[in-house]
Amino acid sequence: MEDLDPLFKPKSIAVIGASRNREKVGNVITRNLLSSFRGKIYPVNNKAESVEGLTAYKSVKDIKDDVDLGIISVPREAAVEVMEELGEKGVKASIVITAGFREVGGEGVKLEEELIHTALKYSIRFLGPNTMGLVSPEYNGTFAFADMRRGNIALVVQSGGIGAYMLDWAHKSRTGISYLVTMGNQADVKEYEVIQYLSEDPETKAIFAYVEGISDGEKFLEVMPESTKKKPVVFIKGGITSKGAKAAMSHTGSLAGSFDVFKAAVKTTGGILIEDFRDFLNLTKLVESSEPLKPEILVVTNSGGHGVLTSDAIERNNMTMITLPSRIEEELKKILPPTSSVRNPLDLTGDAGKDRYTEALKLVSDLDCTKVVIAESLPFLSTVEVAKAVLPFKGKGIVGVFMGGDEEFSSRIMESADIPCFNFPEDAVKSIRYLTSRVPPRKKIRISQPMESALELVKDKEFLKDYESMKLMEIYGIRTPKWSIVEDVDSAEKEADRIGYPLVMKISADSPVHKTEMKGVYMNVEKEQVKQIYQTLSKITKRVMLQEQLNGMEVFVGGIKDPVFGHTVVVGSGGIYVEVLKNVSYGICPVDEDEALDILKESKVYDMLNARKRGYDSGSVIRTITSVSRMMLDLNIKEMDINPLIVNEKGAFAVDVRLILK
Amino acid sequence: MEDLDPLFKPKSIAVIGASRNREKVGNVITRNLLSSFRGKIYPVNNKAESVEGLTAYKSVKDIKDDVDLGIISVPREAAVEVMEELGEKGVKASIVITAGFREVGGEGVKLEEELIHTALKYSIRFLGPNTMGLVSPEYNGTFAFADMRRGNIALVVQSGGIGAYMLDWAHKSRTGISYLVTMGNQADVKEYEVIQYLSEDPETKAIFAYVEGISDGEKFLEVMPESTKKKPVVFIKGGITSKGAKAAMSHTGSLAGSFDVFKAAVKTTGGILIEDFRDFLNLTKLVESSEPLKPEILVVTNSGGHGVLTSDAIERNNMTMITLPSRIEEELKKILPPTSSVRNPLDLTGDAGKDRYTEALKLVSDLDCTKVVIAESLPFLSTVEVAKAVLPFKGKGIVGVFMGGDEEFSSRIMESADIPCFNFPEDAVKSIRYLTSRVPPRKKIRISQPMESALELVKDKEFLKDYESMKLMEIYGIRTPKWSIVEDVDSAEKEADRIGYPLVMKISADSPVHKTEMKGVYMNVEKEQVKQIYQTLSKITKRVMLQEQLNGMEVFVGGIKDPVFGHTVVVGSGGIYVEVLKNVSYGICPVDEDEALDILKESKVYDMLNARKRGYDSGSVIRTITSVSRMMLDLNIKEMDINPLIVNEKGAFAVDVRLILK
Repeated sequence: MEDLDPLFKPKSIAVIGASRNREKVGNVITRNLLSSFRGKIYPVNNKAESVEGLTAYKSVKDIKDDVDLGIISVPREAAVEVMEELGEKGVKASIVITAGFREVGGEGVKLEEELIHTALKYSIRFLGPNTMGLVSPEYNGTFAFADMRRGNIALVVQSGGIGAYMLDWAHKSRTGISYLVTMGNQADVKEYEVIQYLSEDPETKAIFAYVEGISDGEKFLEVMPESTKKKPVVFIKGGITSKGAKAAMSHTGSLAGSFDVFKAAVKTTGGILIEDFRDFLNLTKLVESSEPLKPEILVVTNSGGHGVLTSDAIERNNMTMITLPSRIEEELKKILPPTSSVRNPLDLTGDAGKDRYTEALKLVSDLDCTKVVIAESLPFLSTVEVAKAVLPFKGKGIVGVFMGGDEEFSSRIMESADIPCFNFPEDAVKSIRYLTSRVPPRKKIRISQPMESALELVKDKEFLKDYESMKLMEIYGIRTPKWSIVEDVDSAEKEADRIGYPLVMKISADSPVHKTEMKGVYMNVEKEQVKQIYQTLSKITKRVMLQEQLNGMEVFVGGIKDPVFGHTVVVGSGGIYVEVLKNVSYGICPVDEDEALDILKESKVYDMLNARKRGYDSGSVIRTITSVSRMMLDLNIKEMDINPLIVNEKGAFAVDVRLILK
Repeated sequence: MEDLDPLFKPKSIAVIGASRNREKVGNVITRNLLSSFRGKIYPVNNKAESVEGLTAYKSVKDIKDDVDLGIISVPREAAVEVMEELGEKGVKASIVITAGFREVGGEGVKLEEELIHTALKYSIRFLGPNTMGLVSPEYNGTFAFADMRRGNIALVVQSGGIGAYMLDWAHKSRTGISYLVTMGNQADVKEYEVIQYLSEDPETKAIFAYVEGISDGEKFLEVMPESTKKKPVVFIKGGITSKGAKAAMSHTGSLAGSFDVFKAAVKTTGGILIEDFRDFLNLTKLVESSEPLKPEILVVTNSGGHGVLTSDAIERNNMTMITLPSRIEEELKKILPPTSSVRNPLDLTGDAGKDRYTEALKLVSDLDCTKVVIAESLPFLSTVEVAKAVLPFKGKGIVGVFMGGDEEFSSRIMESADIPCFNFPEDAVKSIRYLTSRVPPRKKIRISQPMESALELVKDKEFLKDYESMKLMEIYGIRTPKWSIVEDVDSAEKEADRIGYPLVMKISADSPVHKTEMKGVYMNVEKEQVKQIYQTLSKITKRVMLQEQLNGMEVFVGGIKDPVFGHTVVVGSGGIYVEVLKNVSYGICPVDEDEALDILKESKVYDMLNARKRGYDSGSVIRTITSVSRMMLDLNIKEMDINPLIVNEKGAFAVDVRLILK
């Protein structure tokens, strides 16, 4: 990571393309540096003698002293040459503000490759091109006008517009920023490197990232668990829907990939994924503070209506309203007026003053839960008084909600004490949910160690025939119904007797086909029908599969190789409704038993297996999922699905398997 | 409705309990009236000579002139007597600010009844008790400090706290208010009356209501369709979850009822129901303006990232991103730089100035869609310039989103031109969805006109036996599988032969029981098993039902009598998964074919019936729903369910019916 130090912590900076014209980007950068950077600044301008009072240089090579970082803001045609000069000068880091590269296609793609090539030659690490730049605690290397409050939230964004917006928002909301890194085209420095670097930065308490695409899924999976262990890493993704993805692709040319798999990747590596931009911004308030927060909540309010809405929001977000211990209820009754309702939400009623808040909070402050303290400005109560009443309870799991009147000033009081504070109870509730619902990060160690028999089965094949797939299942310990392949009437009848009735008969093609649509599947076949059905089916394929007919729930277990995150398992309810219900969950391979259970629960299949206590064997499904996960990695499978996997009290059985290797 | 005129449009007001003490409610009300009301104000105070410079009266009866409205703010023990005096004086309207009635139980309940009784005696209509009061364009009859901007949004709230909050919010967000009515205990004037009254008020463009309970569901159903035809009526409900409902009940003592049924009632009567309070507030911006808005959207932006997030939000909200006609694409290409992407979202790129917005909007303004115009403040662009560029396109379906920098001032420019404007694209998108997804209101005309045969069947019964239910289905044209009731082995075998094999045999109890749990159901019964199964079942109940065994999808169609909205149908997927998937939809009776189709689609059952083009007969399900709706009303059924209704290509068949009459 030290190779990024000159980028993030330079001692001297050259601005190549520093302009005297105050409307030019190169000039704004110089001025931003002047007002933020304590090290040496060298403007490079091949025409001017000086820029903003600093001596200007014709070329970076004319600078006598060492230069750590070169910020490039020249026409795109000159960028490669400037990079070359940086290399010759021995500069080890660069920010390429200049645009017109890969994002515009054609000549731009070629120029970007030359840029990468040149930087590589001199071991220069660079941000961009097509970036708005970087803000660190030590310098503002962007062309955004930024009045910033120093703080501990780091922002990593794959969009200059979002970056500029967040700077403005941080200023207005008084959110303290440690770093803002706008990634640009990520020709060299990637988003996962920046996240990793910032996760080790002592000034940064949490990382908030707007991403449109992940440059390297494998690296992401490797780096993220370490980062999320150190501090919260929060994502919002642009381009989650097909239209959005299309827009994202035309915006940065990134591969948008599947949102569902991204979601699984963030979850499993311990990150937080947020869907709404405002929720994303709101969460900064919680992570800036150090209040210990839990998903069990007590609401204290002076407005009954807001108490009701807050309870609704807590339940909608699957968190718990605690029950007040009766001992505390009794104590509360002594200090509260008879009109107040002593339960959760605890309604101190509209005539509550500062003292009533103080007394109530004293009684509940040691309860092991988050206290959402709502204060509405009322004719005889300023929320400022409540804010002051709350301060002594810092560290007791307090989240304030101040509404109306002087909410702004009340918020400032809370902020100065590092207690999180919102203007809408729903915002507080959602933020608590996001922060407390993280799971411990899992490190994905991908091993391919196939058994000989499996290797033999797949060798040189593009896909497996149905009976080969069945054999592969058996190799991986996935149970199958009794089955047999027959190629004439006599063996059909003999094998049918062996398997038992009623049974299933279906065509056995050489390539994956849709058997049902080809009218190639017969269920409930009885002894006397075997001959005739064999004859019908053998007109489609000579080879026919006989299978034991099982009852149970149909489940879907599959795997795909995601273009970004690689091998991934997919689980959902099987059969005809999966497309309608869309209850499908994803897991990044390898998936262990614990995670398989999570996935099963998330997809609702777990509840379905256990509906009405019928006790279908979810353990077998979990084992099937982990086996599919291993198989995907072992054999580098491109795509497979077991559909249906029939699950009943006795176990889980792969009835139909489709498997594509290449 | 004219009987509410003295309440909403009084010419003279008496304040009973007007205090000289500026910290007392009665004093604040007097001052609020002084600064807002142009008619006569009469303070009533049995000790003082004058209040706030006005002559005070010992009793309302001492006032010589007519009094239209009496605002009561006296201790609760004196309230009934004051009401009596108002009656004697001939006052026809009152606002009872005083609290301590039904909401505190005990003596309060009795006092509230006396209050109602007294008002009724003199035909006085009154708001409250336990209300914060009322604000109209002509007077502020509350004890809230309110700096208000006159406008056309009416607020109706069943919580003083929410009312106070909304006044503050309206002030800060410069939202113009016509009325604010805080309902209090609704001892006399009910929320539906106020909504109805305001729907006829020419100064009110839309009504926003916070409700915790509906006082009279039948009246609501009667009144709302007329109101929603005239203007948008928007609801948010406190107490939607069990915890929230509990809190709501302790808050106002209202019957919270089922949220799902409330949702169905609002939808069918043409209202808008919002779940998040901030979304509720946001929607005011759209209804204040007159921009014609559609759910088909074009996004115009100078920030690619925000364009992406907005596209995501539009798809998540099930709206459409329009495709730009190629003719317009060609024109756009001429005016836009090569780096800009000419599609939807239309990214004018970060260097767009006012003129580029103007030129682009000129080209797209006549497209038949909503134009969401996003402008992010950037170093060389103020959003104020974009706001000015947008103004000439007023009336073309414009919604502005201004972010960063001088967003506040830009918003004011838009507001002054009555063009809606937001600070987050997601807010704009959600608001458009809420406003455009309303359905035309349906008037619910509830008729009970049962057939003789049906009446005979249910006469004096608390519930129906299974075979009686089957007969009732047939009377209402709902198909059943072939069935028969037998009470001995011989008829069992005979009837089984008549029905055909395989068949279903089940117990036939005298009361509704859970047959499966009693091991009282056998499927796939073949001829040779009939005798033995009959013998087994007859040990549980002598009477046994034989039924044709049908294949198909299991659907649930039922009905309940909701305590608030009365007869309601319930539709979902049947069988074992309904509890897991919770895909259940409700419809207020009577339900016609059109609405039944809506309900079927909402519950996803429609998609399931048509999955993989299997073409199960959804028409028959629709007819079953309308029949159940008629049956519920005709026979005043308390609760019934057909579970399963088996649906296949041939129709829908009621296989098992449970029906409770009382």
